[in-house]
Amino acid sequence: MKLSEMNKEQLQKFKNDAQAQYDSFKAQGLKLDMSRGKPCKAQLDMSMPILDVFDSSSDLTDRDGVDVRNYGFLTGITEAKELFADILGIKPSMVIVGGNSSLNLMYDAVARAYTFGVYGGSKPWCQNEKVKFLCPVPGYDRHFGVTQTFGIEMINVPMGPEGPDMDMVEKLVQSDPLIKGIWCVPMYSNPDGYTYSDETVRRFAALKPAADDFRIFWDNAYCIHHLKKDHDSLLNIFDEAAKYGNEDMIYEFASTSKITFPGAGVAVICASENNIKFTEKLLAMQNISYDKVNQLRHVRYFGNADGLRKYMDKHMAILAPKFDLVVDTLARELGDLGILTWNVPKGGYFVSVYTPEGCAKEVVRLCKEAGVVLTGAGATYPYGNDPTDSNIRLSPSFPTLDDLAKALELFCISVKLAAANKLL
Amino acid sequence: MKLSEMNKEQLQKFKNDAQAQYDSFKAQGLKLDMSRGKPCKAQLDMSMPILDVFDSSSDLTDRDGVDVRNYGFLTGITEAKELFADILGIKPSMVIVGGNSSLNLMYDAVARAYTFGVYGGSKPWCQNEKVKFLCPVPGYDRHFGVTQTFGIEMINVPMGPEGPDMDMVEKLVQSDPLIKGIWCVPMYSNPDGYTYSDETVRRFAALKPAADDFRIFWDNAYCIHHLKKDHDSLLNIFDEAAKYGNEDMIYEFASTSKITFPGAGVAVICASENNIKFTEKLLAMQNISYDKVNQLRHVRYFGNADGLRKYMDKHMAILAPKFDLVVDTLARELGDLGILTWNVPKGGYFVSVYTPEGCAKEVVRLCKEAGVVLTGAGATYPYGNDPTDSNIRLSPSFPTLDDLAKALELFCISVKLAAANKLL
Repeated sequence: MKLSEMNKEQLQKFKNDAQAQYDSFKAQGLKLDMSRGKPCKAQLDMSMPILDVFDSSSDLTDRDGVDVRNYGFLTGITEAKELFADILGIKPSMVIVGGNSSLNLMYDAVARAYTFGVYGGSKPWCQNEKVKFLCPVPGYDRHFGVTQTFGIEMINVPMGPEGPDMDMVEKLVQSDPLIKGIWCVPMYSNPDGYTYSDETVRRFAALKPAADDFRIFWDNAYCIHHLKKDHDSLLNIFDEAAKYGNEDMIYEFASTSKITFPGAGVAVICASENNIKFTEKLLAMQNISYDKVNQLRHVRYFGNADGLRKYMDKHMAILAPKFDLVVDTLARELGDLGILTWNVPKGGYFVSVYTPEGCAKEVVRLCKEAGVVLTGAGATYPYGNDPTDSNIRLSPSFPTLDDLAKALELFCISVKLAAANKLL
Repeated sequence: MKLSEMNKEQLQKFKNDAQAQYDSFKAQGLKLDMSRGKPCKAQLDMSMPILDVFDSSSDLTDRDGVDVRNYGFLTGITEAKELFADILGIKPSMVIVGGNSSLNLMYDAVARAYTFGVYGGSKPWCQNEKVKFLCPVPGYDRHFGVTQTFGIEMINVPMGPEGPDMDMVEKLVQSDPLIKGIWCVPMYSNPDGYTYSDETVRRFAALKPAADDFRIFWDNAYCIHHLKKDHDSLLNIFDEAAKYGNEDMIYEFASTSKITFPGAGVAVICASENNIKFTEKLLAMQNISYDKVNQLRHVRYFGNADGLRKYMDKHMAILAPKFDLVVDTLARELGDLGILTWNVPKGGYFVSVYTPEGCAKEVVRLCKEAGVVLTGAGATYPYGNDPTDSNIRLSPSFPTLDDLAKALELFCISVKLAAANKLL
């Protein structure tokens, strides 16, 4: 029975039950962290053999004869470029293999554009009276953190199962020259788990920005992070953009942070050769080389793109049961109550849920008080401001199945309690 | 006999001999690179056991119980902070263990100050009509590259055996609020190999800048990179600065790039706790964590600061003969001719030489044409402009002793030829 169909007495009883369950849960003194999309211990353990790739007897010369231990080769070793290029369906010359963090590469790309401008742009972003970014919402808090740091005004664009509202994106980008960029997680979006439709990718590729220095930040963080054999697929935006001469409009990002070790992986920024050349020139003032030993370690470990894709099946085997548990628990506990909707992603790291308006913060607070830390409500919106206070990002990857089950039980109780309180 | 004391006939004969030697050298078709201070193969081979530190059976939990394979702990693991703190004589809370590149940390520090300002500063550097840096010369070309990239005006300050001309530094820093920083390599300076005297360090520590956002960029790249048992020592600038309440004025940098593997080492930025807190807040928008696996790998490899210091003796054993060869060859070939002066460093990576005015570019050109690439003449000055065209940075570390001997022979011939041509 839906809560909205209960009479006051039924609702009060429902609330009292939820409160009693909540109190007994709180008494257990749980301490679980579901706040971030972190790989779990089993995933990290799975990648330990990457540490066997090199020992003191190894030959650390790459295919081109480069001693990867020494300085130089700023844009990365050829075979690492090839590995990522194969995965992303682009040319190796479009890849810069950076350090350990795609977030850092994104920050640097924004910072460079802000201070020095972009290839083909008439001036640095910072020389405009104002700079604006489109932010599909809900989205990734760290994206919003980067733009907020630079004082860039963020404009919400609603997400749907096909991707961002492209009517709105087109209208804004084509009319306002102060809009310099848009954050996209085109595959298994953070947090909704949506993959942009072919039509959406084509419309992105065909954008006609009013600004001569507009960039799409295509954060393909989950490009091979499937949760189902029957997985989504994403149209290659560079191929589409080529049809419109728009290749210079795109920066794509990816990393192995959720493939080997977060923080000790390898990240890339991919772009047209014009953009790469422009970027390399500035990058050469910033760094002499990234960690090529780790690049070669990763290439030797995976062998090639097929090896890497197969490797992801092992992650799927660990993660899929956790996502199934989330979806099954939500359906079982809340399915009939009409107080929560959720997405069922085929990949990525999150389950995005929607409480009744004005309840998300309260649910997160209740969970925290009983020992389970969720991603902060509002975090999935620019400035931490979810206008309806309803979206919560669940991150099931890190806890064990047992811990996850407990956390989900508490979560469902908290949703019931918050919704009942709201209605009473 | 000095060239300046030769009559025209003697000089012509001297030149002809040099030309003949040069031509025969050129015919050999040498191909050697002495342009950068790169560690040589023997040094890199020496560090190979660091790759045995971890294998798939290793426990990658640090002393605090942190699983270094996962996200987080942005400022680095405690035991890595302690290792660098011990080496530099500061508190671990003053250390951020960054990525693989101290240059990148310096660039980022300039970029942050430029766009966002520094702790205690009234506004971002970029909001001034102009920003200026003092550049002790000759100095490190990549330092100058960073400041030039941000359009920062660079002012030459002469170096001497005690360090930069402190009368000039004090006068400028204390009178001009647009001077926001100074580049220093205080120990075994690049390229002269000078270590700042105690008096110089004290005067730096006691500076009273006109700018409220002035910073000393203390690039302690060669802090333990001695070439002699009887080595230089450097006063601890933070200890001195504390006497004047000036701790917030200093950013110190160091790395293991020339200890283990360049590009696959660990770098640090060190500063007062005020500066560290301010930096961490901005850094958290840029990155989730640096490579903590590599941090722990380095700590386990060296054990502690003493282990690290002892390790440097092995580098000394490889490098000292090369530096001896440089100094001996220069003395033997050019000692009596009065056409070259040079420093005899007790550490670092360079021998700095001075040709007669207007000859450095020509010497570098002659060497290049005969197959030996030196650091570009002028590179040791801002904007690549050595006002007297006389300084050349020799980098003896990379070639083998045999190759170095050949390169030095060519270098001496080139100096003779250029000097004779100049005088004729």
